[in-house]
Amino acid sequence: MRYAVGCELPYKVVTPATMLLNVEPMRSEQQQILRERFTVTPAVDSESHTAIETGNLYRRLVLEPGEYVVRYEGHVELKPKVRDPQVISEIPVRDLPLNVLPYLYPSRYCQSDHLGRFALREFGHVPPGHERVTAICNWIYEYVDYLGGVSDTSTTAHDTFTQRAGVCRDFAHLGISFCRALGIPARFVSAYGWKVTPPDFHAVFEAYLGGRWYLFDATRLGPIDAVTRIGVGRDAADTSFLTYYGQLQAGAKQIWVRPLGETDDDADWTTDAVSVAKV
Amino acid sequence: MRYAVGCELPYKVVTPATMLLNVEPMRSEQQQILRERFTVTPAVDSESHTAIETGNLYRRLVLEPGEYVVRYEGHVELKPKVRDPQVISEIPVRDLPLNVLPYLYPSRYCQSDHLGRFALREFGHVPPGHERVTAICNWIYEYVDYLGGVSDTSTTAHDTFTQRAGVCRDFAHLGISFCRALGIPARFVSAYGWKVTPPDFHAVFEAYLGGRWYLFDATRLGPIDAVTRIGVGRDAADTSFLTYYGQLQAGAKQIWVRPLGETDDDADWTTDAVSVAKV
Amino acid sequence: MRYAVGCELPYKVVTPATMLLNVEPMRSEQQQILRERFTVTPAVDSESHTAIETGNLYRRLVLEPGEYVVRYEGHVELKPKVRDPQVISEIPVRDLPLNVLPYLYPSRYCQSDHLGRFALREFGHVPPGHERVTAICNWIYEYVDYLGGVSDTSTTAHDTFTQRAGVCRDFAHLGISFCRALGIPARFVSAYGWKVTPPDFHAVFEAYLGGRWYLFDATRLGPIDAVTRIGVGRDAADTSFLTYYGQLQAGAKQIWVRPLGETDDDADWTTDAVSVAKV
Amino acid sequence: MRYAVGCELPYKVVTPATMLLNVEPMRSEQQQILRERFTVTPAVDSESHTAIETGNLYRRLVLEPGEYVVRYEGHVELKPKVRDPQVISEIPVRDLPLNVLPYLYPSRYCQSDHLGRFALREFGHVPPGHERVTAICNWIYEYVDYLGGVSDTSTTAHDTFTQRAGVCRDFAHLGISFCRALGIPARFVSAYGWKVTPPDFHAVFEAYLGGRWYLFDATRLGPIDAVTRIGVGRDAADTSFLTYYGQLQAGAKQIWVRPLGETDDDADWTTDAVSVAKV
Repeated sequence: MRYAVGCELPYKVVTPATMLLNVEPMRSEQQQILRERFTVTPAVDSESHTAIETGNLYRRLVLEPGEYVVRYEGHVELKPKVRDPQVISEIPVRDLPLNVLPYLYPSRYCQSDHLGRFALREFGHVPPGHERVTAICNWIYEYVDYLGGVSDTSTTAHDTFTQRAGVCRDFAHLGISFCRALGIPARFVSAYGWKVTPPDFHAVFEAYLGGRWYLFDATRLGPIDAVTRIGVGRDAADTSFLTYYGQLQAGAKQIWVRPLGETDDDADWTTDAVSVAKV
Repeated sequence: MRYAVGCELPYKVVTPATMLLNVEPMRSEQQQILRERFTVTPAVDSESHTAIETGNLYRRLVLEPGEYVVRYEGHVELKPKVRDPQVISEIPVRDLPLNVLPYLYPSRYCQSDHLGRFALREFGHVPPGHERVTAICNWIYEYVDYLGGVSDTSTTAHDTFTQRAGVCRDFAHLGISFCRALGIPARFVSAYGWKVTPPDFHAVFEAYLGGRWYLFDATRLGPIDAVTRIGVGRDAADTSFLTYYGQLQAGAKQIWVRPLGETDDDADWTTDAVSVAKV
Repeated sequence: MRYAVGCELPYKVVTPATMLLNVEPMRSEQQQILRERFTVTPAVDSESHTAIETGNLYRRLVLEPGEYVVRYEGHVELKPKVRDPQVISEIPVRDLPLNVLPYLYPSRYCQSDHLGRFALREFGHVPPGHERVTAICNWIYEYVDYLGGVSDTSTTAHDTFTQRAGVCRDFAHLGISFCRALGIPARFVSAYGWKVTPPDFHAVFEAYLGGRWYLFDATRLGPIDAVTRIGVGRDAADTSFLTYYGQLQAGAKQIWVRPLGETDDDADWTTDAVSVAKV
Repeated sequence: MRYAVGCELPYKVVTPATMLLNVEPMRSEQQQILRERFTVTPAVDSESHTAIETGNLYRRLVLEPGEYVVRYEGHVELKPKVRDPQVISEIPVRDLPLNVLPYLYPSRYCQSDHLGRFALREFGHVPPGHERVTAICNWIYEYVDYLGGVSDTSTTAHDTFTQRAGVCRDFAHLGISFCRALGIPARFVSAYGWKVTPPDFHAVFEAYLGGRWYLFDATRLGPIDAVTRIGVGRDAADTSFLTYYGQLQAGAKQIWVRPLGETDDDADWTTDAVSVAKV
């Protein structure tokens, strides 16, 4: 499927500021960029960098005071690998590639070390593999309310587990924490998500299973095979769409995802295992 | 039933110190002290005080450097009110005596404000009354492991809920928090508990139901009708057996509870509602 | 001095609700109520209760769904005891009245047990007495920014110490925590505070010194001898102006404090020790 | 200077376990390994991996139940770059290499986002550069007590800032947090540290200044130019000397650092800027 995705982000820069943006989709065989345009109005130079380990695309802007509009628009073709969840197994830690091991450790927002006892009791008996991570997502969907205003940028998986409410970012942090507590590498994915309402940057997560990273979304806000990945990292601390130094005010941002061509609305949800990343 | 209860607490006082002890059982119609003796060796004067609101017995010692043994021994007769749990109802906040209202508020170790969503979902549909608090205790017994070394004096109900392990004090804090989150006044009770192993001061809790305080023990370490209450308060911060100012080292403490006369070992557990306090 | 104080609090009650209000000033020899009126529009019955240990005045309303305005207005005469701060000493724990000891313990928002090392290092060498608590207030005023939007109802003294910003309630919690860590009993005071802008309920604290409770306000928002005390407690958890059970929406509240008669604007700040409570 | 460094780690493996060790020193132009030996007794195969981004050396052991001794011994030659601290400047975020930016973000144990206000006030006016990070270390050395038993593996920089006590790992976390809060990339370094007593793995940190990573040790336990780096990462969560899956019991570990050849004991402390890593 093809999607037009993009965002428009207005800023008022008060003091000279450096912005580090991560809003441009990654590219891979499963996520091809057909065309795209990144603009800043008024025009300023920008510097682009692709992180080797993750493929995240960062863009750095150095801005003098003034008003700016940052805009990205792209056409993306998603060709996810779709598999039968039954055959996607967990990989014992002894056999994991060493470069995925960091995704087993606790991180800023995912204190998997505190949630181990619960995770083991609740999910320890579920057959290992893709369906165990699905069981985690089902649990989150069932027991955590999707609610704005309860969480903020300092909310961790520990808090969400206790308060039982949050938004997409909190759902992803909790899913990641449970996975890591069970010995399944898991990472945060910032994304453009089709059907997410109100439109905003979306957050899902990936678990490393059967030799690939599989996508999961405990919010059920939109189809997982229509997620355009922007950045991956250990949690939201790594994948902020904007990090800045200096003083600035953000205006109302717009984010959009539109299917290009016909869509089969009835078929847009899948229980298949969906992966767009091998590394 | 009658019990011999007591403790022996050795201290090495390094600098002049003031100790505030709360190790002597409360007295009430349901908990009568047949005889008792409080000694400090070598002998020092002590000052005693009964808190009006709670009945807690505090004893203040002012000690010069040296080695001391504090010892309490007493014979207690417990005549708890025993009721059919089915008929013990919750009292709506509109009708609660105003002096029990403070036991609805969050406190140092019982952040009932953070656990409201979970408590409502898990226990909201349980019929109100004594059996709802029993359901809370059953949940704690089922889902929290009784384990030393996981918690310490800074562990709160929030932590225990996440880590799913703790000791009697943590079990009581969690039970209290759930009760308060549901609008049921609840308080911490330090105690001499029969059959508690290894022998130590015990902690249980009371919920205000049907016009009295009813005892609950989510640890199931011993029979609830064989608990000799020492102090009550909003949580462990209020009911420490020892608070001191100055520098001291504690030796190995001994605590004991022995039934006086025959006991019917088979009959020592009860599912009845048990109360020893009206106020 | 005499002040007209009061508040007007509009509520929309959605489901049958029980409200527990604590907005009426306490009465004492140093704080006399000349006249007052408590009304609910439309009229409903209310039940009033004065807590024995604190003197706090609670009022309970049981409300059916509908719109209500709660209004309190009173004329208060403040006759605070004013002393030379130099002669107000700390009382060693060995000599403290036993009923003030609970104000030495950590509480929900005042984890004095975590801040002991800092308190001792920073204030341990300051001569004990009223001026040591003044030193605490000066430190808070100097190092913590008075800022809205940084803290909320779950913010504790621990958080405020780290984040170095907050509002009157946070300033009071931090002052209380430092006092307790040093062995000085301290408690939270909710109040009508003259010159507080924007007008709102105010929060200050009291420390037990020289046999009385002395008022302190680390925010310096208004003169400490013009503070009309509403409630005292271990921290904000004890002295909420409103606790409710049921569902309601609060409208924009109004709070006012107006001097009655001439005021000497130049003379309104004092460095004297000010006390309005013995117990 | 040359050092013999090493460790001997006895384990009793209870269930089949996978161990991931990071105890072997990194290699670089400034840290050359003259000879080394890694053994497990009884012998088992091991798999080794050098992380590209960091140079950390990981070794994975898959162990059946039994008793094992893991031993590493090496001879290391340290040739640190030594510079005049006066000329080592900070690099504005606009000019930082993009691959060091992750070391600006908050991480599991370094919530730099919570400590910004304090860091800015305390260190904001210190001239930027190497001496500002030295000022941070001096502050930590001055205001935080080096004490065992206060912190554990869940202790964060936030906790250490409040409690004002900890061990080398806590000191490093706090230093890193302050640096990041000021816009200076900083990372955790696990190490063999000469003169550390009692002998144990040591922890220091690096700040990115003037185009290189410079070493800092706020504990002052040993000379910074005699630190043999093992692993770098965002905090201790990334650089554990042992991560394991399965059940095992650790025996008493031994760690050693011995100078090879003569040492000038008087000259072992330096105020120079010391760096052993460019990337």
